[in-house]
Amino acid sequence: MTPIENRIEQVVDSILEDYRSGRDIDRLEPLQCPDRDVIIDIIEKLRRIVFPGYFRDKNYKYYNAKPNLSVLIEDVMFHLTRQMKLVFQSRGEDEAGATDRAQEICLAFFSRIPQIRALVQTDLQAAYDGDPAATDMTEIIFSYPGIFAITVYRLAHELHMLNVPMLPRIMTEYAHNLTGIDIHPGATVGRYFFIDHGTGIVIGETTVIGENVKIYQGVTLGALSTRGGQSLRGKRRHPTIEDDVTIYAGASILGGDTVIGRGSVIGSNVFITESVAPATSVINKKQELQYKTRDK
Amino acid sequence: MTPIENRIEQVVDSILEDYRSGRDIDRLEPLQCPDRDVIIDIIEKLRRIVFPGYFRDKNYKYYNAKPNLSVLIEDVMFHLTRQMKLVFQSRGEDEAGATDRAQEICLAFFSRIPQIRALVQTDLQAAYDGDPAATDMTEIIFSYPGIFAITVYRLAHELHMLNVPMLPRIMTEYAHNLTGIDIHPGATVGRYFFIDHGTGIVIGETTVIGENVKIYQGVTLGALSTRGGQSLRGKRRHPTIEDDVTIYAGASILGGDTVIGRGSVIGSNVFITESVAPATSVINKKQELQYKTRDK
Amino acid sequence: MTPIENRIEQVVDSILEDYRSGRDIDRLEPLQCPDRDVIIDIIEKLRRIVFPGYFRDKNYKYYNAKPNLSVLIEDVMFHLTRQMKLVFQSRGEDEAGATDRAQEICLAFFSRIPQIRALVQTDLQAAYDGDPAATDMTEIIFSYPGIFAITVYRLAHELHMLNVPMLPRIMTEYAHNLTGIDIHPGATVGRYFFIDHGTGIVIGETTVIGENVKIYQGVTLGALSTRGGQSLRGKRRHPTIEDDVTIYAGASILGGDTVIGRGSVIGSNVFITESVAPATSVINKKQELQYKTRDK
Repeated sequence: MTPIENRIEQVVDSILEDYRSGRDIDRLEPLQCPDRDVIIDIIEKLRRIVFPGYFRDKNYKYYNAKPNLSVLIEDVMFHLTRQMKLVFQSRGEDEAGATDRAQEICLAFFSRIPQIRALVQTDLQAAYDGDPAATDMTEIIFSYPGIFAITVYRLAHELHMLNVPMLPRIMTEYAHNLTGIDIHPGATVGRYFFIDHGTGIVIGETTVIGENVKIYQGVTLGALSTRGGQSLRGKRRHPTIEDDVTIYAGASILGGDTVIGRGSVIGSNVFITESVAPATSVINKKQELQYKTRDK
Repeated sequence: MTPIENRIEQVVDSILEDYRSGRDIDRLEPLQCPDRDVIIDIIEKLRRIVFPGYFRDKNYKYYNAKPNLSVLIEDVMFHLTRQMKLVFQSRGEDEAGATDRAQEICLAFFSRIPQIRALVQTDLQAAYDGDPAATDMTEIIFSYPGIFAITVYRLAHELHMLNVPMLPRIMTEYAHNLTGIDIHPGATVGRYFFIDHGTGIVIGETTVIGENVKIYQGVTLGALSTRGGQSLRGKRRHPTIEDDVTIYAGASILGGDTVIGRGSVIGSNVFITESVAPATSVINKKQELQYKTRDK
Repeated sequence: MTPIENRIEQVVDSILEDYRSGRDIDRLEPLQCPDRDVIIDIIEKLRRIVFPGYFRDKNYKYYNAKPNLSVLIEDVMFHLTRQMKLVFQSRGEDEAGATDRAQEICLAFFSRIPQIRALVQTDLQAAYDGDPAATDMTEIIFSYPGIFAITVYRLAHELHMLNVPMLPRIMTEYAHNLTGIDIHPGATVGRYFFIDHGTGIVIGETTVIGENVKIYQGVTLGALSTRGGQSLRGKRRHPTIEDDVTIYAGASILGGDTVIGRGSVIGSNVFITESVAPATSVINKKQELQYKTRDK
């Protein structure tokens, strides 16, 4: 063994020794651990199921859609069931129970796909109606980050409602990565939801959003304070947005008791911690700006 | 067939039935549909053409640059032509016409590459001159999200000017995904453009930006209101930024009639909906802050 | 040669001619150039070393952890050493010197892995303690963008401290791409660091952050002005955040002389360019909002 090989071995040994410290990061048993890459593959394939004909593997012509779709769904079900089973086992369920429950949840989830697709169609329509730069539906499906994030959220939300832990959040954080739009899978969102641009949007776990709501980049629907940490778990911490509300860029609406009434419009950068009556426009009092002309 | 296979088949059938509802998302004919993954591959290869020697496939030594470059360009032309043809056909052009037009546009686009490269070189210089943390050009090319987003925008803008639908937006939204910088391919941007940090920047479709402009994270160059939706299509909705303007983080400049005059500086978080004369500094009147000391 | 082939050849020739212009982007010698894709692969593998058992290649059972870990570390060391060598050579070092220095730095870096892991464990604990939506540590490791960005920063910071140019910034910009969180590898960050949501966070090169600090989305720890450009290189331009400080969403804290004292809380959207005493809460004076009810 050369001196350099010796030193490498020492480094390896010291890291291996470090793995025996018993902290959260020292988990070594990998078998009951879900695989983020597999979950991302699942969510991409679910998008193909939601939007048939739009994405890769584009041979869903009507005459052969059925066998192809069967193959695709069975593939996703196999992997989703397996990932759920791993999560359930990692939380102490035995293998047989975890397998059965994962199987049942998978079937329940896929039986909800038509309802999810019906919702996504309304979101698509809202994006087209709301954006003068949109030229057609295909462009929206292919390139709008809002539609991507909402679709992933709607899929993840169903899994969340079926009490699947961890996987829904991995899914929505994948969309967060790609779009800068952070929608917690626990949030409730009505039909015709439109997100424009989107980067920097945060929609918290206990948020409730009605129908036909339009939100721009940088909007936070958040908690007033999370300094209570884990003691706040499960409590309502995020606002209610009623139907037909528009929230412009950079606005923050905080607090579990805050309700934005139907048809209201919240202006850019407005910071709100109290309820707003229906049909109200709220804007910041005009900023006092200071203008100074440079000598030339 | 086992009971579980039976239930899977029922789920598949119900989704297949759902695909017959005739909505936008029910498109099943895939052949005339562009492929987002192919377009992303094209944009990555175009970056290699813009920055030879910087990215993978690094065998562009001078003595063999020509054959390699030929292969690369022919590859990109083949795929770009094919994607354009699919878009044109999806909008009703016949195959022969779509093929010819795609071929001509591709040649026109590639003949503009030297002009695009000349612009990108000025952007690179602006990034180096403007950022004290920059150590050399290579670091900027390899790691600065602003240069990435601007390069993709400059390529997509040329395709937009050549009246290619859909593909330019897919390209800039890819950059938006990776950088949080959302530049619509329809925007007009002059030389020496510098974006620092960048996350949360939105530059709308009809924005006009002059030379030597510097923009920080969270800046919106947007529309005053898009509640008019599709009725506003094609109208000037976004501002004009003249030469030598600096816009600090979080500022919003809105409206198609808003002009920021040459050499002006717009401060952090300033919200502007009216024109600003040349050589003017605009800052918010000092925030009134409330300080409260905790008892210890 | 057909007419179209002729025209393609002319386009290729004109681009090749353009590469002879001698600008920064005309670099053709690729051999001494680091490879961004390899560096991204390195950072992903380093995450597997930091969190054994959590990510792909999940066969680190205790009984075979040692050989697997050896293989993984040797793989990363080989590639990291090679990339460092390329960077050193691109800055004028001869091959033998560059090789030796890269080897030594690699060993020094890997010997720091246990200390890095100890820090990351505290960040993980801070995320769990601070977020009521967190259900367990695995979810945080798998899906929280803050933990991702902090882990990449902590690894890149070690390389930065070992005077490796360029690679650390490529690493943190990769995390910036994925999370919207931009932490310069030169920043100094203490234990128990928690970033919630994260999109739009900017932490500049000369920032100093103490222990147990909590930062929300859209926070800038930045420079007062960078109009001095390269003349400011190496000077302290970014603030100091002492222990136990919380900074809420959208706040900006700017300037190299600005110190936020221990235990202080900075409210949402507060804009600060002067120091704040310890144990102080700073909030914006209540916004003056204008409410207007629409006639119905």
